[in-house]
Amino acid sequence: MTMISEANKRKARELTRQLTLEEKIGMIHGAALFHTAAVPRLGIPEMVFDDGPMGVRADTHDDNWAPRHNTRDEVCYLPSGSAVASTWNPALAFETGRVLGEEARGRGKDVILGPSLNIKRSPLCGRNFEYMSEDPVLTAVQGDAYIEGVQLSDVAACPKHYAANSQETDRLEVDETISERALREIYLPAFRSAVQDAGALTIMGAYNKVNGRQCCESPVLLDRILRHEWGFDGLVVSDWGGIKDTVKSAEVAIDVDMNVTYDFDGYCFGRPLLEAVRGGEVAEALIDEKAEHVLAVMDALKMLGDARKGRKAGSYATIEHTARTLDIARESIVLLRNDHDVLPLDGSAISRLLIVGANADRIHSPGGGSAVIKAIHEISPLNGINGFVGGNIDITYAKGYDAPQVNQDDTWQEDSLENAADKSADETERARRLRDEALALARDFAASGDPIVFVGGLNHDHDLEAYDRKGMGLPYGQDALIDGLLDIDPDTVLVFVAGSPVEMPWQGKASTIVWNWYNGMESGFALAETLFGAVDPSGHLPETFPVRLADCPANSIGTFGLEGHVDYAEDIYVGYRYYQTKGVPVLFPFGHGLSYTSFDYSDLQVHDMHGSIRLDFHVTNTGGRAGKAVPQAYFTLEGTDEDRPKYELKGFTKVELEAGETRQVTIEIPCGRALRYWCNEAHAFRMAPKAAVHVGESVGDLRLSASVVRRHYGKDG
Amino acid sequence: MTMISEANKRKARELTRQLTLEEKIGMIHGAALFHTAAVPRLGIPEMVFDDGPMGVRADTHDDNWAPRHNTRDEVCYLPSGSAVASTWNPALAFETGRVLGEEARGRGKDVILGPSLNIKRSPLCGRNFEYMSEDPVLTAVQGDAYIEGVQLSDVAACPKHYAANSQETDRLEVDETISERALREIYLPAFRSAVQDAGALTIMGAYNKVNGRQCCESPVLLDRILRHEWGFDGLVVSDWGGIKDTVKSAEVAIDVDMNVTYDFDGYCFGRPLLEAVRGGEVAEALIDEKAEHVLAVMDALKMLGDARKGRKAGSYATIEHTARTLDIARESIVLLRNDHDVLPLDGSAISRLLIVGANADRIHSPGGGSAVIKAIHEISPLNGINGFVGGNIDITYAKGYDAPQVNQDDTWQEDSLENAADKSADETERARRLRDEALALARDFAASGDPIVFVGGLNHDHDLEAYDRKGMGLPYGQDALIDGLLDIDPDTVLVFVAGSPVEMPWQGKASTIVWNWYNGMESGFALAETLFGAVDPSGHLPETFPVRLADCPANSIGTFGLEGHVDYAEDIYVGYRYYQTKGVPVLFPFGHGLSYTSFDYSDLQVHDMHGSIRLDFHVTNTGGRAGKAVPQAYFTLEGTDEDRPKYELKGFTKVELEAGETRQVTIEIPCGRALRYWCNEAHAFRMAPKAAVHVGESVGDLRLSASVVRRHYGKDG
Repeated sequence: MTMISEANKRKARELTRQLTLEEKIGMIHGAALFHTAAVPRLGIPEMVFDDGPMGVRADTHDDNWAPRHNTRDEVCYLPSGSAVASTWNPALAFETGRVLGEEARGRGKDVILGPSLNIKRSPLCGRNFEYMSEDPVLTAVQGDAYIEGVQLSDVAACPKHYAANSQETDRLEVDETISERALREIYLPAFRSAVQDAGALTIMGAYNKVNGRQCCESPVLLDRILRHEWGFDGLVVSDWGGIKDTVKSAEVAIDVDMNVTYDFDGYCFGRPLLEAVRGGEVAEALIDEKAEHVLAVMDALKMLGDARKGRKAGSYATIEHTARTLDIARESIVLLRNDHDVLPLDGSAISRLLIVGANADRIHSPGGGSAVIKAIHEISPLNGINGFVGGNIDITYAKGYDAPQVNQDDTWQEDSLENAADKSADETERARRLRDEALALARDFAASGDPIVFVGGLNHDHDLEAYDRKGMGLPYGQDALIDGLLDIDPDTVLVFVAGSPVEMPWQGKASTIVWNWYNGMESGFALAETLFGAVDPSGHLPETFPVRLADCPANSIGTFGLEGHVDYAEDIYVGYRYYQTKGVPVLFPFGHGLSYTSFDYSDLQVHDMHGSIRLDFHVTNTGGRAGKAVPQAYFTLEGTDEDRPKYELKGFTKVELEAGETRQVTIEIPCGRALRYWCNEAHAFRMAPKAAVHVGESVGDLRLSASVVRRHYGKDG
Repeated sequence: MTMISEANKRKARELTRQLTLEEKIGMIHGAALFHTAAVPRLGIPEMVFDDGPMGVRADTHDDNWAPRHNTRDEVCYLPSGSAVASTWNPALAFETGRVLGEEARGRGKDVILGPSLNIKRSPLCGRNFEYMSEDPVLTAVQGDAYIEGVQLSDVAACPKHYAANSQETDRLEVDETISERALREIYLPAFRSAVQDAGALTIMGAYNKVNGRQCCESPVLLDRILRHEWGFDGLVVSDWGGIKDTVKSAEVAIDVDMNVTYDFDGYCFGRPLLEAVRGGEVAEALIDEKAEHVLAVMDALKMLGDARKGRKAGSYATIEHTARTLDIARESIVLLRNDHDVLPLDGSAISRLLIVGANADRIHSPGGGSAVIKAIHEISPLNGINGFVGGNIDITYAKGYDAPQVNQDDTWQEDSLENAADKSADETERARRLRDEALALARDFAASGDPIVFVGGLNHDHDLEAYDRKGMGLPYGQDALIDGLLDIDPDTVLVFVAGSPVEMPWQGKASTIVWNWYNGMESGFALAETLFGAVDPSGHLPETFPVRLADCPANSIGTFGLEGHVDYAEDIYVGYRYYQTKGVPVLFPFGHGLSYTSFDYSDLQVHDMHGSIRLDFHVTNTGGRAGKAVPQAYFTLEGTDEDRPKYELKGFTKVELEAGETRQVTIEIPCGRALRYWCNEAHAFRMAPKAAVHVGESVGDLRLSASVVRRHYGKDG
């Protein structure tokens, strides 16, 4: 792992002493859309940043967002953050980072702007597809592994957006009122562990305000928590345009000012900061600190002097990387329901197959905002299913509904986009025709017992940076189509490709539901392998699927998606912490995911070790084929004198078992994570004296329970 | 290997007896652009053909050439026939076929229209890129392996175009005068071995005339040679539009009439043939024979009845297939010259690299005619070099010359195309600017000793079905650009991406030349790995590169590219058989290809075995790294009382040797191939009584010699 050493800091201090004020200013703001200025006389190169978490963005020009339209920026397209989280497999999160780091370094980047670690507070947040989970532990574990993977290649990860960028509406100005406890327990832990446990070299300041202060001006977030408490000595870069006030941002521990506009010299940390220093408004020592942070990261990345010869070179668009994207996608798909064992489909017994739905024939890499990817290829579900099953099954495809593509010009910029979610609301003649055509085909296939697969969901006109969804319903009249298909064949296989949950009003009629996130360049193959049983599904939901939007606490107890101000009044009761504690029924619980086999759990024993709590239990594969179980450990903290959630995820693992195999499984949880809670009264973390411990396959399917009483009194940190 | 058995023939006869005349007629002509009519009442499906040799063509509509524009027809793109031949590695030719067969079956095809086995008579033939070689033995060995690979997947290969489709000009009508000897020794052997040795289930009749008869009406080619002499009992299909006279073609052993027009019922073997049978002009027994050929192939492919359940399913656009395309590409690149050991480039010692030339930034899969591919991706040289070397080398790209893309509408049809080869002849202001920009950059790079790589050559506006090139010169003013680059840096690495040889008037000044065929979807990576030494080049030329077009016997002794009639007056003196025999100097000889290491040859012993001649010799890797040698065995037949070529390739092998390693290598050649020649007087093959035997690295670099006297008198066949 690349870390900042004392030698890096010394080198940074030495170089900083030799820099003029102008040179230091050049190093701490954009000299182009994605890099700072170099100081050639001292061998200091530009620092090159680039989007984003699912692959390295295509080349734009230095001074405008127009694409360069070359062929040297075609890359591998990785599964989205939601998909990576959905694997519940840190080894695959590490591979995601490793591939991304190699691709970023291969493309000549120094800092890759990911992972996206914000908490999914509401299903409507436009960037949920980039984010991992509603849970801080799952986010932290997967995020840490991802960051360690990235930084193997002498390129810095940049966990974002610090902090609480959990809505897109009015994101540049919205002020979020968040309790100290919610910040500490829900919104900050993944960032803490990113810098303290994974050693992230950089971090990105968010656009929004938290408790009255812009994140990029916040002494609490930047100075007190990030630098002082967590000891972060890397580089803080603003989200592009996140710094708006020269002096306020100069005075806190944010280092680099990047923006989306072309007047680079006019950036806050450009000429305005230069003048503020010259005018005595800002101390030059503050500029030195920022320059030192930049240089220390550069030195850690072997960007300076002779160290450059030893820097990793990277590579991109390789077959090896492509194969890894498939590995990740295979474990991210979630089998939500399989009541009649319709899945896996038996390819040798099927002579024809009907596929319905626009998402079967759509690729998603070219959308989403800054996560846009110019992929060397992306296998659609239709190409993947055809390519996998081959020539013996006659596949008929009907679009079923119309999902017109909004022109997301690849010169993507925030204010050039319009959210297209509403545009298709009207039932049109064409929509009716498409639906009728699909339903007529479905009747024919159902009559002969031939299977029907629906592939619908969302796309990046809905899961989209800078815009929140307006509702949780499926767009394009899909509900009516699905209703019709289920009336014809209740065993229609319903596949959803999407980055965030949707309401499923027809779910009572459906026997078979598969969830497929935006799943990278081999997405369609992973889906085909899963549907036909070459791969056993082992993805588990990293977020609750509520029955309806109104059930979501962010949208009911708190406020979401408003301009100006939003109140996180649900406090720590985010996601399953709310639904489970309040007994609100959900469509699919957090952690849920079926397999083609089944698992039994037994013999839970809890050991209070020195500094950690260890759970030992047995998992048996009771079904007829190999599969991967995801045992999850939830704690109920007791004796805290505070209101606490009924369940909190504290640890998990993933284990592959042959048919009939029993294995002892261990989950070891550091005490600091296991029993820790934020004490409102003390304004500090405290340790609960005891807890009930539960192990199961989801928060809604707990199989074993035990309890633990704290014996060892470790540090709270 | 799938072969036609007696059981298949029996089944075909039984079914044929149950068919009406109309049903039989439906089975022997196109009911759509790429398939025949089914007979559902007897469980006889359509027979589905598709292009082509480098990958399975994208879906067109059944009744017109417009593309379907779906995403289920994106496939893997394989290296061209020239590239496959250039590996001199039958195992890779087999993999080419295996991948293509799996992809074809995966796409639901029954017959894939390849390999293309015509002999490269002149460098100008527009389809040379599809063809393998100027030599019948190399073509046959690679073609056989390819066919065996294809047919593993219960899909038929269709070697084409039988026979002598070695020019595109006036290809539907041109009459080729070819001596019996040239046909038997040069133009037919690869077809004979395709059906006799590799068991090809189908073969395609060519467009052109040979010795006064359309190939698809020729009793000599079809009845006497193919069916009678070679015993072919598979299916003969016309090239699309190759049948023009109903009765003439009905009366010879051609079975299926395919065409490019939309009046399917009006095809010769449609209503006109039906009427000819009803009118007594054509015997129904002839129709039965054709239907039986179709049905026997269907049965061999498990297309009929319960056998269908056991038919291979195939797959396409997979990572495994992609990886194989890279394996093939790696061994096909030919290092033509490396006088100053400029290659391999040392990536760790280079900080910047200049790449010049439009072919660096161009992909070739979407062109060429019926070989057009909708590839899931194609890595350009620029993407491949960047992706391989990664972020530590600063790569500057200059186009250098303008190669405007002709709009080859993907509804490709013969007469909708114009050959664009001449359009760019004029030196324009823009061309001068591009060249000056590149040369200025080159001066800068040369001044600091940084390497320059030129990537030029041809593209599918030149290497193109239905059009022959008008000359052998490089288009787009590349010669002037290369001249300029070599004046600046004689060690400029010259890379040519092309499907056929070009004149190199500046070659005296060039130290470093690399030849890269149209090399499939991973082409750019294979090139990068070769340039930077991760792969040792082991491709060898499958054709002579003459100094100038005027040296080519087809264009000087014979005639080439004329309308109406061409005379193959050079007889068997095609390619190196001419240059070596007549002592005409060449630019690069047949079989030539350098390595980054070097090989010594010693201890040749020739054993006349029963039925074969075995050569044993030692090859030593005398260089500093592992590499692959391609020992080639040429014979000089003696005592025949005929004029004979100085050298004829009779066998070859490919052997990988570690640095310093010596290995005994054996090449065993069946007597039929080793000593056989066509006796003009006897109108039959005869065996030469003796021969001189030579082993070397190319026909121009023979290292060992011995002689052999025939002891055993095997069959001539």
